This record gives sequence, C-alpha cells and structure tokens, in this order.
Amino acid sequence: MKKWLSPLLLIVFFVLSGIAHYAGWDSTIQFILAAIAVIFVAGFLGKATESVSHYAGQRLGGFLNATFGNAAELIIAIFLVKEGLFDMVKASLTGSIIGNLLLVLGLSIFAGGLKFKIQKFNVSLAGMNGSLMIVAVISLFVPAVFLNTHAITTSDSKLLSLIVAGILIVAYVFWLVFSMITHKDYLADVTEDSDEELPHEHEPEWSKGRSVLYLIVATVMVAFVSEWLVGTLETFTSKFGLSELFVGAFLVAIIGNAAEHSAAVMLAMKNKIGAAVEIAVGSSLQIALFVAPVLVFASFFFGNTMNLVFTAIELLAIGVSVFIAKSIIQDGKTNWYEGLMLIVVYVILGVSFFMV
Amino acid sequence: MKKWLSPLLLIVFFVLSGIAHYAGWDSTIQFILAAIAVIFVAGFLGKATESVSHYAGQRLGGFLNATFGNAAELIIAIFLVKEGLFDMVKASLTGSIIGNLLLVLGLSIFAGGLKFKIQKFNVSLAGMNGSLMIVAVISLFVPAVFLNTHAITTSDSKLLSLIVAGILIVAYVFWLVFSMITHKDYLADVTEDSDEELPHEHEPEWSKGRSVLYLIVATVMVAFVSEWLVGTLETFTSKFGLSELFVGAFLVAIIGNAAEHSAAVMLAMKNKIGAAVEIAVGSSLQIALFVAPVLVFASFFFGNTMNLVFTAIELLAIGVSVFIAKSIIQDGKTNWYEGLMLIVVYVILGVSFFMV
Amino acid sequence: MKKWLSPLLLIVFFVLSGIAHYAGWDSTIQFILAAIAVIFVAGFLGKATESVSHYAGQRLGGFLNATFGNAAELIIAIFLVKEGLFDMVKASLTGSIIGNLLLVLGLSIFAGGLKFKIQKFNVSLAGMNGSLMIVAVISLFVPAVFLNTHAITTSDSKLLSLIVAGILIVAYVFWLVFSMITHKDYLADVTEDSDEELPHEHEPEWSKGRSVLYLIVATVMVAFVSEWLVGTLETFTSKFGLSELFVGAFLVAIIGNAAEHSAAVMLAMKNKIGAAVEIAVGSSLQIALFVAPVLVFASFFFGNTMNLVFTAIELLAIGVSVFIAKSIIQDGKTNWYEGLMLIVVYVILGVSFFMV
Repeated sequence: MKKWLSPLLLIVFFVLSGIAHYAGWDSTIQFILAAIAVIFVAGFLGKATESVSHYAGQRLGGFLNATFGNAAELIIAIFLVKEGLFDMVKASLTGSIIGNLLLVLGLSIFAGGLKFKIQKFNVSLAGMNGSLMIVAVISLFVPAVFLNTHAITTSDSKLLSLIVAGILIVAYVFWLVFSMITHKDYLADVTEDSDEELPHEHEPEWSKGRSVLYLIVATVMVAFVSEWLVGTLETFTSKFGLSELFVGAFLVAIIGNAAEHSAAVMLAMKNKIGAAVEIAVGSSLQIALFVAPVLVFASFFFGNTMNLVFTAIELLAIGVSVFIAKSIIQDGKTNWYEGLMLIVVYVILGVSFFMV
Repeated sequence: MKKWLSPLLLIVFFVLSGIAHYAGWDSTIQFILAAIAVIFVAGFLGKATESVSHYAGQRLGGFLNATFGNAAELIIAIFLVKEGLFDMVKASLTGSIIGNLLLVLGLSIFAGGLKFKIQKFNVSLAGMNGSLMIVAVISLFVPAVFLNTHAITTSDSKLLSLIVAGILIVAYVFWLVFSMITHKDYLADVTEDSDEELPHEHEPEWSKGRSVLYLIVATVMVAFVSEWLVGTLETFTSKFGLSELFVGAFLVAIIGNAAEHSAAVMLAMKNKIGAAVEIAVGSSLQIALFVAPVLVFASFFFGNTMNLVFTAIELLAIGVSVFIAKSIIQDGKTNWYEGLMLIVVYVILGVSFFMV
Repeated sequence: MKKWLSPLLLIVFFVLSGIAHYAGWDSTIQFILAAIAVIFVAGFLGKATESVSHYAGQRLGGFLNATFGNAAELIIAIFLVKEGLFDMVKASLTGSIIGNLLLVLGLSIFAGGLKFKIQKFNVSLAGMNGSLMIVAVISLFVPAVFLNTHAITTSDSKLLSLIVAGILIVAYVFWLVFSMITHKDYLADVTEDSDEELPHEHEPEWSKGRSVLYLIVATVMVAFVSEWLVGTLETFTSKFGLSELFVGAFLVAIIGNAAEHSAAVMLAMKNKIGAAVEIAVGSSLQIALFVAPVLVFASFFFGNTMNLVFTAIELLAIGVSVFIAKSIIQDGKTNWYEGLMLIVVYVILGVSFFMV
C-alpha cells in the first residue's frame, strides 16, 4: 500500500462519517461510514501508541501499549455506558473477548499453520495467560451466579461488582509489574533469538513530538467516530431486525478489533506466533481485567452503576472461548487445525447469537 | 480361541436372534440373543473393515477404518431415529461417548498400568485429542443452553442443530486430512519404533475380494441385528422398570462398543497404550463429530428433524467425562491409578443414571 | 519461640475455653477463646501425629499422617453432623477445600515466589493431584445436578450419596496405596536431593511411648474444644448478623486449618514448594475424598443421613477453586503472581459469601 493512501483514506472517511452524522443521512449509510472510519482511526491510534511507546523506553512503552491497546473499544464502551445501554456494553465486551480468543487467535494460528508445519512460543507465557483467563472467567461468573441463585440482591450485586472491579484492576496492575519487570525474560518469546530484522520493522517513522501530537489527535478522533457509530446502532439494529446482542457481540467487536486482527495475522505468517498470541490473548485479558472494571467505575461516576452480571449465553460464550483457547495454547505449539478449531467454535457461537 | 469358533458362534447367534425376532419369542430372550449377536457381528464388521483397509493402502485405509469404526452404533441409531425414539438415540450417543472415554479408556489404562509402571504415548496427539473433545462438548452445550435459556425457539433449535451438524462434519473431514495427511508423523505413536512384530499381527487372513465381500455381508448383518435389538428395547425396558436413559446410555452403549473394549484393553496390555487411547478417544470423537451430526441429517431426511439438544444430566455426563479424560491423557503418560479414576467416574455416573 | 511457651499457651487457652464454656461466659468471648484453643490443640495434634508417624515407619507413618491430618476438622464436623447442622457442615467442608486450594496454596506460592524467582516441584504429582481434584469435583456435582434437575428424588439422593461416599473412600484408600507404595518414587519431590538438613528438622523430640500418649491426649482435647466451639457458633452468628455460610466457609475453615497454613508457608519459604503443595492440595483432597464421605456415613449411623448435595454457590466456589488451582500447579512451576491469582480468587469468593 502506498504510504500516502492510508492517511488519505483515514481523513476522507472521518470527514464523510462526520458529515453523515451531522447532516442526518440514512442510518445504514451512517453506520457503514462510521464503521469504516473506526477501522482507520483505530489503526491510526494503534500506530501512534506504538510510536510513542518506542520513545518512552521498553517499560513505560510496554505499559502504554498495553493500556492504550484497547483504547478504541474503551471509548466506544464509555459512550454506551453514558447512554445507559448496559446490555450493548456487555454484549460488546463479550464480543471483544471471544473475537480475540477465537477469531483473531484462530485466524493467526490457521494462517501461520498453513505456512509453517508447527509454530512454537514460550510455554510459560501460555501457562500464565491460561491461568489469567481463568481468573477473568471466575470474576465474571461469581457475581452472576450469586445474583441468579438469589444469594444476593440486585443492589448488592452492584456493590459486589464495584469491589470485584477494584480487585481486578489491582490484579491487572500487578500483572504488568510481573510481565514487564520481575519476570520479563521468563515470558520472552522463544523465537526472538532470530529477530535481527525486527527492530527495523518497528523503527518509527515519526519524530517524538509528532508521535505525541498524533496520539492526542487519534484519541480525539476515536472519541468522535465512536460517538457517531454508537448513535447509529439502535436505528440500524431495529431496521434489519438484528438483536442488540448480535450487533454488540459480533459487528461492533469485529469493527473495534480490526486493527488487531490484521496485525496478529501478519505476525503469525512471519512465524512470530508468540507475538500474535500475545496480541490476541493479551487483548482479551485486558478487556476482562481492565476495560470491564473501568467501565463499572465509569458507570458509578455517571450515577448509575452497571453491575458485572452478564447473561447466561454471554457467560457461556466467554466460558467456552477460554476453555478451548486455553487448551490450544497451553503446550506452546500450534498447527493449522488448532486454528480451525477456534474458528469453528466462533462460527457456532456466531450462528447461535444471530438466531437470538 | 480356535479359528473356526468365532465364525460359528457368529452364525449361530445371528440365526437364533433372527428366529427369536420373527417367531416372537419372549422379549427378554430376544434382547439377550440380539445383544450377543450384535457383539459378534460388530466384531466381524471390525475385522472386515480392518482387512479392506489393509488393501486400500494407508490413507484410504485409515479413512475407512475411521468411518466404519462406529458403523454398528450408527446403524443402530439410524433405526432408532427412524422410529422417532430421539431420547433413546441421545441417551445411546451419550452412553457411547462416556463409555469410550471412561470405561474403555479406564480399563485399558488400568490393565496396562498393572503390567507396566508408566506407559507413554505421543503427547501431541493427546493435546489435539483433548482440544477436539472440547470442541465436541461445546457443540453439544451451545444449542442446549440457547434453547433452555429461551434465547431461541424450539424450531430455531432444529435449524441451529442442522447448521452445527454441518460445521462438525466439515471439521471432522479436516481432522482426517490433518491426522492422516498433513500431520500424520507428528501424531505417530512414540512406542512404535519397537514394533517389528506388529505388521505380522495385522496381516489380513482374507484375500482382497473376500474382504470386500465380508465387509458388505457384515454391514447387512449389522443392519438386521440392530433392528432386532431396537425392537426389543421398549418391552424389555418397561418389563424391568429400567429408565430409557439407563438402557440407552449404559446397556446399548456397552453392547455396541464391546469389540472396541476388548481390542483396546489387549493393546494396552501389550504396552501399545497409544493405540488404545486412539481407539477409545478416537471412537468417542467420531460419535460426537460424525455420528451425531449424520443422525441429525438422517432425521431431517426422514422428515422429522432431531435437534442436538441433550438433557442436563446427559450434558453433565459428557462434560465431566471429557474433563477427567482430558486431564488424564494430557501429559502423554498413564498409570494404573489414572485408569481407576476413570472407572470411578463411570461407576458414579452409572449408579446415578440407574436411579433415574 | 521458647520450647515451653507453646505447651503453656496450649494448656492456658484449653482451660480458659473450658471455663468459659461451662461457666457460660459471653458468647463472643467463648467463641474467641475456643477459636484460639482450637489453633493450639490442632497444632499439638499435628505434632503428635508426626511423631507417632516417625516411629511407625514410612508407610504406616505416611498413612497415619494422611489420615490424622484433618482430624481436627473431622471431629468438629462430626459434632455439627450430630446436631443436624448439615448446612454448616457443608459450608465448612466447602471452606476447608477452598481455603486450602486458594489461601494456603496461594500464600505459600506467593511467599515462596517473593524469595525465589521460579520454584519447581514434581510435575507428575501435580498432574495426579489435578486429576484427583477433578474426580472430587465430579463426585460433588453429580448428586447435586441429578437432584436439582429432579432426575432423582430427595430420598434417592441420600442413597446415592451413601454409594458415592463408599466409592470415594475406596478410591482414597487406593490413592494411598498408589502414592505410598506402588508409585512412591514417581511422585517424590524433585528438590529433595538437597535435603541433608531435613531429617534433623523432623527428628521427633518425644519418645515412642510419649508420642502415642500425646496423640491420644491431643485427640481427646480436640474433641472437647471442637464441641465448645460448635456450641458458640449459632449465638455468635446471629449476634453479628453473619450468615451461617460465611461463618462455616471462612471463619471455621480458617481456624481449623491454621496449623496447615503456617506449616505450608514456612516450607515454601525454604524453597520446599513441593511439600507445601502436598500439604495444601493433599489436605483439600482428603476433605473431599475422605472427610466428606466419612461424615455421610456418620450421619447415617446417627439415624439422619446427610446427602452430598451442596448448594449452587458452594459448588461454584469449589469448582472455580479446583479450576484455577489445577491450572496453576499443572506445569510443576510456580511464581509469585500465580500465588497472587489464587489469593485474588479467594478474596472475590470471600467478599461474595460475606454479602449472602
């Protein structure tokens, strides 16, 4: 792709989407334009984050990368929370978790596996990721089961959600300490000894000042297009007779994660399956351990606390995704059929949610 | 056993069972004769399949073996589907899955473990099998949860079952491609380097033409005795006050899998635990990923679509079987106590189903 | 600690607790004194058991250690069973299982991990422990699901519980045979090659006769303080508005396991993480596979059979504890963050149960 093409498309679709929103164009066109704009803007934000991270040094950079990695999703979700669309928020969190664990990870492993018979990555990282995924699942299941068995009241479920959210954020901060400071080398990618080419690939094309400026601009742009996208969802959904659940869990999630999708698949095809796993699994962990808790606190500050109680089928989707993803990554080796299994589960869930 | 004894018994019990059926003998005697005939006929079918596979060459042979492996169960189940006995079909599928994963695998590991302190097999095969089992469990849980939480309607559950069935058959075909073509060596048995004796054991005693003829004859015989067996079940069940669930899940499953039982245990006692695991786990995977989906399509063609929605206790039985079996095989090493654990779970489930 | 201090405190608190009980002091003071007395008496019983085990030789000694290890909990629970406080019994069994798997194991791994970057132990033992934990979970889930889906009646659930209890005790006895006789070396601790110091640490300070005498005295003392403690629970619970569930699952469990807590953490900090895991996981297995079944039989002999049907939130707590603990120990390596994850899950469960 030509260097000037991507920024041009970014600006064109951002402007078009803005015009569509303020001029009140047809809701389907608004939705499509906003969706395309989100993909470009999220890509821009990702690139700016990476560039700033580069100048910030490895530790702070890793932290920035990890924290801004899901910034687009977080901002979309905050707008949904503000409008009180809690069901859509939970559906999109669900979709983001399963989209990363099944679709992004599945396509990466499948594409990488077609090119390389067996791909390997750090088995200790796989084990830690698997355990953290289980902690995430537990933190979502516990409030739901306590509420649904009437062991606690609805108002208690909000207090419990706030407490659990606080615990998860603390656990996430310690995870950053563990993975970036105390045990960085222990989790390092096994294939990285042959990466003399890698530094050049990641050499930022922007200066330090420009990178920071772009990070701010990108964040503002993401905020705008997210609001425009969210504004179209309800009309669009009812127009096509789609359930909120399907739109939130599949359409919004796929759009919001498009940048990660392509990055992870590219890395896998360069035999950097470890980095691809880190993007896919890391992103889903961040949603569960950081984005979801932050949204609970955000809703608390907006004056209408959202609890962490997901519906039975959302919990099912998250639970089975973690179960199969953990089983596939745990030996630190992947092949094309393992990618296919993840995609199979994603399709089964997609068809089922579509029917709701 | 004398060479002529087995064919003689096969013919005697086949004929006796036929007479009992057409002459309308006492239903208990009909049941017992049909059950014994099924065991012999299934063994004959297995031997004929193996012999044809030998002449067909490794790849096609492996495919034939895998596809005809559960032919007896498939034919029994198709008769049950045709008569609309969906509960009995699901019970016998459940029984076949848990019977293979707990009883056949458990007895093999236990018997092998009494003779050899630790038995080893290919850990990559164990991992792939474990992941596939999870895919199978997910494909059974998803439609059930969506239906039982009223997320979808009963008629939608049939459509969803057809789609899931189609996905599973595709996944199963790709599994054959993976395990027999692209990654055959990757999954090969670790202990097979010492098998100079094995080829002789498997040298077929029949010529090519005779093998094909026997395969056809055996399939026809299985079809007949299956129908006779199914015919007796309802009377027999009500006579002894047994639940359909117990009869389907334990009696029919044990009878239909008798041939696999003895083959797997024999292999384990010759320290070929990898082959025993492949029979037991492979057979249960085939039931979930191929036989069950085929039955859904068969019911569709009979004009009365059977959904893939199992009852809560059937799902519990399948779920716990996969959970414990996966835990035991995943390190590629087995010992007698691991076999005992599988048998313990089988007995607990057996007693519980008996009480229903 | 001075040698004479511990016996002195033991006697002082035992006597004070007895006076408080018979003189009918304030229930809060009774509870506190009984709780402190239980901790000292349980420690005394543990030491006496270890000393007798030393003289009995490795095999019988190991058996005694394993069987008397949870003697304090067993005796407390028998008093609860006798008074028909089945809910409290199940809550305290739940609490004991999750307390060992999450709090004791978590603190041990965390404390050990702060001192040593990676701690290792026998991966075969980890695998066997993980599988046994799953068998334990299955044996608790099966009767509950069969009862709650109305597949069986309440009276059948008692019969089923007795049968399952019998099966579990048999399985537990075979586990002792496996781990102490047939596969003792297979499960031996990997770090024990450097333990020339260990024998001296465990050299008993008491003679053979004195050890046996102390074992009898300690058992009698445990029986008394257990009764005194149980006597205070109901008043204490209602006075502070705590749920029976929280008191049983957290307070009683922490008190009853205090001795194991400190022992396991000490071992982990001496880099004996294998021994710490054995105490924590072994203790929880013993509760599920031996103590719970014995209580079912005890209730049967008292004329009012307690079934093994735990509540949904108790099963959730046990299930998630096993799930995360299995994931963390299965690779035979631990680090501080893995300990933290266990503690996080314990805190989430603790807060949730407190709200009930």
